[in-house]
Amino acid sequence: MAGMKVNNVPTRSIWRVADHAAVDIIDQTALPHAYKTLRLASLEDAAHAIRSMQVRGAPLIGATAAYGVALALLRDAGDAALANAIATLGATRPTAVNLHWALARMQAHLQPLPAIARGAAAWREAEAIADEDVAQNRAIGEHGLALLRPLAEKRGRLDIMTHCNAGWLATVDHGTALSPVYAAFDAAKLTGWDVRVWVSETRPRNQGLLTAWELKQHGVPHTVIADNAAGLLLARGEVDAVIVGADRIAANGDVANKVGSYLKALAAKEAGVPFYVAAPRSTLDFACPSGDAIPIEEREGDELRVVHGCGNDGRPAAIRQLPADEAVANPAFDVTPARFVSAVITERGSAAANALHTLYPEENHG
Amino acid sequence: MAGMKVNNVPTRSIWRVADHAAVDIIDQTALPHAYKTLRLASLEDAAHAIRSMQVRGAPLIGATAAYGVALALLRDAGDAALANAIATLGATRPTAVNLHWALARMQAHLQPLPAIARGAAAWREAEAIADEDVAQNRAIGEHGLALLRPLAEKRGRLDIMTHCNAGWLATVDHGTALSPVYAAFDAAKLTGWDVRVWVSETRPRNQGLLTAWELKQHGVPHTVIADNAAGLLLARGEVDAVIVGADRIAANGDVANKVGSYLKALAAKEAGVPFYVAAPRSTLDFACPSGDAIPIEEREGDELRVVHGCGNDGRPAAIRQLPADEAVANPAFDVTPARFVSAVITERGSAAANALHTLYPEENHG
Repeated sequence: MAGMKVNNVPTRSIWRVADHAAVDIIDQTALPHAYKTLRLASLEDAAHAIRSMQVRGAPLIGATAAYGVALALLRDAGDAALANAIATLGATRPTAVNLHWALARMQAHLQPLPAIARGAAAWREAEAIADEDVAQNRAIGEHGLALLRPLAEKRGRLDIMTHCNAGWLATVDHGTALSPVYAAFDAAKLTGWDVRVWVSETRPRNQGLLTAWELKQHGVPHTVIADNAAGLLLARGEVDAVIVGADRIAANGDVANKVGSYLKALAAKEAGVPFYVAAPRSTLDFACPSGDAIPIEEREGDELRVVHGCGNDGRPAAIRQLPADEAVANPAFDVTPARFVSAVITERGSAAANALHTLYPEENHG
Repeated sequence: MAGMKVNNVPTRSIWRVADHAAVDIIDQTALPHAYKTLRLASLEDAAHAIRSMQVRGAPLIGATAAYGVALALLRDAGDAALANAIATLGATRPTAVNLHWALARMQAHLQPLPAIARGAAAWREAEAIADEDVAQNRAIGEHGLALLRPLAEKRGRLDIMTHCNAGWLATVDHGTALSPVYAAFDAAKLTGWDVRVWVSETRPRNQGLLTAWELKQHGVPHTVIADNAAGLLLARGEVDAVIVGADRIAANGDVANKVGSYLKALAAKEAGVPFYVAAPRSTLDFACPSGDAIPIEEREGDELRVVHGCGNDGRPAAIRQLPADEAVANPAFDVTPARFVSAVITERGSAAANALHTLYPEENHG
């Protein structure tokens, strides 16, 4: 997906470089105003990239953490170094469970090995996590398309609303919420559906602009709106389905996702419009009983006080919209109760949010 | 209210200047980064001030339109000039009914008079509209406080959420939604309540920053949030009541207000938190049967594409966050159905949204 349409854009959002001692990422804090890649060569680089949101999106955070372990082991593959890498990366961001899932998988895989074997094994396991993410997201696209197809066939068009960015930039490739949208857009070349996307700005970090950038690369028609406009558009019947990603889904189906998702879920319910959550297995936290137990990250107030964009010269610029002494609350996520989620779309298919155990019968459901 | 706390701030948001041939306003497009006043000396000045949102807020739009008629008649008080003034001002903004209410009142008052008497009469009527707005908003404060008092007494504190700016800047003085907040804050000096306000940023025009500025002048503790955060805060129990203003309330109690209000109403309902709408008689449109009949203003996309603030030098500045060719939808208002409104607070007291006729039995209710 990532490389299908664009020159100079790699085929993934994170990739190991040729000399195998580093990974490159797309600096998502510079998008959509500037496209540049960054090289991560150490544990600290990887932790910083996650913390500062140079990479963001739950699945990509997980993959970056896995690569971060491999980068850490380049210097020292002993038990203490491995434990330090896991702890350092695990402390970067609290809400997306994919981070902890990837780190637990790396630890379980590497801990039993002798130190000398860990370096190569870490790279292989990180690559496996990335490869699986790509395959899972492709499957999410197909399962999501199955839900969207009847909606599109009824009207000959499909107006999807999304929130934040859950496209290929938020994953290793394809995306979660946008994977069914790309699948529908590709199907529309045969069916003739008019596929359009409502892109919610997603204050305070404006990840909706990443979604607009992504969709533009792929040629998908889209319209950017203020987050506040979502309710009106849903009430007016201008939306066929809302699809968002997730940062953590609790065992009871409550969904933590980018702050503002819950408001869209409420408005979708009121309008009788389906609200879908697209997420791979790594986002499901069967050990977490409900949304109440999901930690909600509070990020620094300057995300709200200072707005980034580009100046008249086209270069990245910023302005202050609130003084530094103005009190700000900046929770990065909210929780949508399972009853507002029409279905969760995973790589194994779709299920009601409170019936995810049926898709993963082999997991321990307490 | 307006002048109580601040040096260099006038006691109203619009006022006739000493030589009686102009009115001054506070340029609300420069706030909160710069405080400056603007002189309106003609019909064109008044129409531009309303259209460009140098003045905004339904009651202040109404008062400015009334003064605009008086300014127009300075040049020519004939029938054609009067009709032109009414038509020009009436075309500035479609949603806030206060505009049409004030113009209809001016026309009804002036039309029967000989041209020579219209000039002085226009100023008197505009002043009367402004004076009544001040008195009505003061009464809204008292009636709103009666609703808030039991909430505050229960917890010894009061956490109010508002949207957009419905404070004294949006009216001639006191405000609508903020009038009960100011009343509660003043009462708290005796009761010891801890009164705090959640201020929603209100993209795309960021009128929440006007609210933050206003509350700061008055010393009311407040916290600014992204619009997206409202659902989480309500679900967490961190809000005792939501109070917003209105641009038009239909006969059935449906409320048009700044886009995003509806999302807060949904989240308040879900959380069991009262959602109050504060508005004077001039905002009630008994001739409009329901929210479906309220025209929703679509404003230019650059409001979303370009963000205003101040640069490092502290001077007003702007950045572009979306290219000019990026498609944008920018509805300025949404409609909250009456069933989500706990009460409408008017200068005559509070009533259920679908029972406003009980407060205004003398009006024609169709």
